[in-house]
Amino acid sequence: MGRMTVRAYAVERAGGPVQRLEYEPEPLGPLEVDVAVTHCGVCQTDVGMVDDAHGYSRFPLVAGHEAVGVIEAVGSAVDGGQLAVGRRVGVGAVAGACFACEWCLSGRQYLCADKDDTVLRGHRGAFATQVRASDWRYVQPIPDSLASEHAAPLLCAGITVFSAITRNGVRPTDRVAVVGVGGLGHLAIQFLAKWGCHVTAISSTAAKADDSRRFGAHEFVAAEEGLERVSGSFDFILSTVSADLPWDAYLAALRPQGTLCVVGVPHGPFGFQPLSLLLGEKRLVGGLVGSPAESRQMLDFAARHGIRPAVETFPVARMDEALDHVRRGRARYRAVLEF
Amino acid sequence: MGRMTVRAYAVERAGGPVQRLEYEPEPLGPLEVDVAVTHCGVCQTDVGMVDDAHGYSRFPLVAGHEAVGVIEAVGSAVDGGQLAVGRRVGVGAVAGACFACEWCLSGRQYLCADKDDTVLRGHRGAFATQVRASDWRYVQPIPDSLASEHAAPLLCAGITVFSAITRNGVRPTDRVAVVGVGGLGHLAIQFLAKWGCHVTAISSTAAKADDSRRFGAHEFVAAEEGLERVSGSFDFILSTVSADLPWDAYLAALRPQGTLCVVGVPHGPFGFQPLSLLLGEKRLVGGLVGSPAESRQMLDFAARHGIRPAVETFPVARMDEALDHVRRGRARYRAVLEF
Repeated sequence: MGRMTVRAYAVERAGGPVQRLEYEPEPLGPLEVDVAVTHCGVCQTDVGMVDDAHGYSRFPLVAGHEAVGVIEAVGSAVDGGQLAVGRRVGVGAVAGACFACEWCLSGRQYLCADKDDTVLRGHRGAFATQVRASDWRYVQPIPDSLASEHAAPLLCAGITVFSAITRNGVRPTDRVAVVGVGGLGHLAIQFLAKWGCHVTAISSTAAKADDSRRFGAHEFVAAEEGLERVSGSFDFILSTVSADLPWDAYLAALRPQGTLCVVGVPHGPFGFQPLSLLLGEKRLVGGLVGSPAESRQMLDFAARHGIRPAVETFPVARMDEALDHVRRGRARYRAVLEF
Repeated sequence: MGRMTVRAYAVERAGGPVQRLEYEPEPLGPLEVDVAVTHCGVCQTDVGMVDDAHGYSRFPLVAGHEAVGVIEAVGSAVDGGQLAVGRRVGVGAVAGACFACEWCLSGRQYLCADKDDTVLRGHRGAFATQVRASDWRYVQPIPDSLASEHAAPLLCAGITVFSAITRNGVRPTDRVAVVGVGGLGHLAIQFLAKWGCHVTAISSTAAKADDSRRFGAHEFVAAEEGLERVSGSFDFILSTVSADLPWDAYLAALRPQGTLCVVGVPHGPFGFQPLSLLLGEKRLVGGLVGSPAESRQMLDFAARHGIRPAVETFPVARMDEALDHVRRGRARYRAVLEF
């Protein structure tokens, strides 16, 4: 119990390398929870923060926001029935919110202006022996049937694609496409297949066709072939890539009243012809991370259906290597650090 | 009853002028309905077809697709209980559909590939003494409390904005904005105000502020002021203009998870920054005309709430003048021809 020195893996400047950083945690607040990290996924966003790709990183920086571990200590106001010391739990990209604003009160904590980002806000991220959640309601019990190395990537990559599915009203009768077969995409294919949909994977890497089918895709389209073959096919397209897609072609691939949901951030601006959107009354929407309630649904759904990320594990001593693996887009399909 | 010579008002070449055109109608098919036109609205789309603005007009062309009149004859398979000869009815932009495809069977006849456009398809438009609907289910009885000159513009302008409201799930608790105070916009303001919403009108014509309030708007924003004052304000924005709006600013004017619905066709492509859409999980959607069921709901709602377009009537002999009035954007707010 109590305050133990945290051994974190930090970068002192943009791009690394990783160095040990020890710090003493503040006294535990009433709503806070300390989790002893056993596994942490490495997200493309972590690499972006390590590399200061967006210009808002502060150094020294401890990244990591897909943590699974064991509860080490809970604050005085935490519901110990749900979160007892010793319980296996996860902490994702968000670790707290105000639970009082209109967004929180309507179950949309992901829109809270005071939500507490696991890495960017005051406390440190989860590439460390311990991570602290600022509100226990963001600490997710992990179902027994999910191994920790599989649960970790679900906490950011998994919930991002899952909430895009639920919040856009995707139905089991829909024909859907997933653009990009990577960390997010390979999970989106699994979730949508188990959701009951007909799933087409679209990738610029033709070699991912077999993997896509293994994840549950019914069809595969190599992006360089173009989308003519699947024009007017999809009720829902989920783009998980950061590329500037040919938006007119993707809108044309939708059926009337279909939705193109973008959870990867394109590099350049969106641009497309008005009639690509208007003629079939189509929709272009953004996607954000999920709420605590959605995260619990997602973990439950993943456990029930045997959804699990394909992971490559790295001992934390090889963290530089893991970061570089993700940086180069070589993860098949998610790198997970073991502490 | 039966086949009478139709006296139509046609243009022989792009831009006019209007000339008399007489033709004998084909024998009446079993599902068809002939309506003796008493009033017909002049839509910007009619001017576009007269001027061949989009390059697909065929001449001689009889425009007109907001017709109100009296049933003159019905086909053998028409339900005479609903549509008796002599009944006052309306015919809008669409006059028939297959009623058999997946879209028709799910109540979305506006997506039917075989839907019958009142002007563009084989038969003639409603700038004539008679218009023929190819399917009686597209002939709308007009509620008694709606004057014919008021009902006419509801059949295209009215249903276009009404279906954008219903199909995007706008709720009475929403704060909404209408971009453009014209033929469509002045109706959208009325529908949304009666829907229970807080309505802001946005126009590039500051002189329309008083009219906007008369139509029910609670606030007015002159577009040249910019939208900073209303940033993050709206759950729903309905754009009724054909302008290339500053899309980033309009997306910024939405609240999180808000919807920007575009029913006017911009001249150039859409262009905006990814984060304008993604950060608040916002939505950009197109809008189409309504179904027969939605049109009946719309007429009922308009009758119940006293929603009526502001119209300027023209005897059909002054049709050239009426077309030019609309062409120059001078209608306040809808021109209606009287036959």
